[in-house]
Amino acid sequence: MPTLILLRHGQSQWNLENRFTGWVDVDLTTEGEAQARRGGELMAEQGLLPDEAFTSVQTRAIRTCNLALDAARRSWIPVTKDWRLNERHYGGLTGLDKTETARLHGEEQVKVWRRSYDTPPPPLEAGSEHDLSGDPRYAGATVPATESLKLTLERVLPYWTSAIAPRLKADKTVLVAAHGNSLRAIVKHLFQVADDRIVGVEIPTGNPLVIELNADLQPVSARYLDEGRAQALPEIAA
Amino acid sequence: MPTLILLRHGQSQWNLENRFTGWVDVDLTTEGEAQARRGGELMAEQGLLPDEAFTSVQTRAIRTCNLALDAARRSWIPVTKDWRLNERHYGGLTGLDKTETARLHGEEQVKVWRRSYDTPPPPLEAGSEHDLSGDPRYAGATVPATESLKLTLERVLPYWTSAIAPRLKADKTVLVAAHGNSLRAIVKHLFQVADDRIVGVEIPTGNPLVIELNADLQPVSARYLDEGRAQALPEIAA
Repeated sequence: MPTLILLRHGQSQWNLENRFTGWVDVDLTTEGEAQARRGGELMAEQGLLPDEAFTSVQTRAIRTCNLALDAARRSWIPVTKDWRLNERHYGGLTGLDKTETARLHGEEQVKVWRRSYDTPPPPLEAGSEHDLSGDPRYAGATVPATESLKLTLERVLPYWTSAIAPRLKADKTVLVAAHGNSLRAIVKHLFQVADDRIVGVEIPTGNPLVIELNADLQPVSARYLDEGRAQALPEIAA
Repeated sequence: MPTLILLRHGQSQWNLENRFTGWVDVDLTTEGEAQARRGGELMAEQGLLPDEAFTSVQTRAIRTCNLALDAARRSWIPVTKDWRLNERHYGGLTGLDKTETARLHGEEQVKVWRRSYDTPPPPLEAGSEHDLSGDPRYAGATVPATESLKLTLERVLPYWTSAIAPRLKADKTVLVAAHGNSLRAIVKHLFQVADDRIVGVEIPTGNPLVIELNADLQPVSARYLDEGRAQALPEIAA
């Protein structure tokens, strides 16, 4: 049975500082590293051993992937890294403290940017210290200036279809170690979540979400391995 | 200019215990982890930034690769893992303490197994606790029962030619994080070292060996990044 394990990266330095991170390559905190290892231990304890893994090109997700695989004694599986699994790009909000942003732009406006499906924040200014268009890891990639959740989905899903889904159709157990919003994109697609409800789906950090799929890659079951830190999951269509 | 960086994994638990390890999946010690990070720091300090990396399917080499790339802020590059970069398989010596082996088989015999180019140790007995033929990481691979350095070379070189050399020919900087004997195989091939001299080439752990190559992948220069822990290198043909 195709089995998908979604793992959101552990706490990063900017999570801790309550700043908009997006594509900035912030590393895990010590707590975030421990969360990643714990995720891998849970997989091993419950016999959920990935055959392959996919992650973004952002250090916090890659290190979460590697630490979880080390803890599960599966560091030898193939790991593919792709920018299309990156976090949502927060545009001009990148680097700002979330409280500060509310003071600058007003709470209502910030709520729209954070909670709406298709309103992107203002674009990142060219020449900003957070402009990554010259970063060699993005050679050949399309670096956005800002993204709504919808725009995030529009780059995640083609990658899902071309790279990840075929491995699941080959009956593999596949780990995707990524970010709050790139994982939301996958969940929205699999569970057919409505546009106005997907931002309400919150995936906790470092808690593997195991989704069993049928041959058409429709969800049959879904559960968090750490039940004590689970969040509500979208319903599975009958 | 094609640049090859060879990195031998840091100290493992069985290195510390002076036991024949071969294909057994022994992890790094804390000291071995620090060596791997230091290797990555040296690469970054000297501006030697790999575009791609290759490693074995053994945890100690994979973790060395990941820790070095983390330290060099290059964790986002593609990393390919293949069993053909594994350590030499020590056959029936696997797991034995090196002093104990000398008592069992005689010092002279052990010297032959360790130092000759083409005499493999006795094969690992079927059903041994170190028999890895059922390990899922070797599905589709040929698991040897024992290997001489020559046999090791005979599986490393086809992989070198088909997977690693093409990336160098594309003018990339390529990191190979592997083992004493799989790295010896590459050094023997590149520097045309004679059969009876290659066992004398000792690559220190965690010390990146940087080899610049010409378009035909012949060595132009070779040096260790940590000069204080360098070992003699084979001569470069004029």
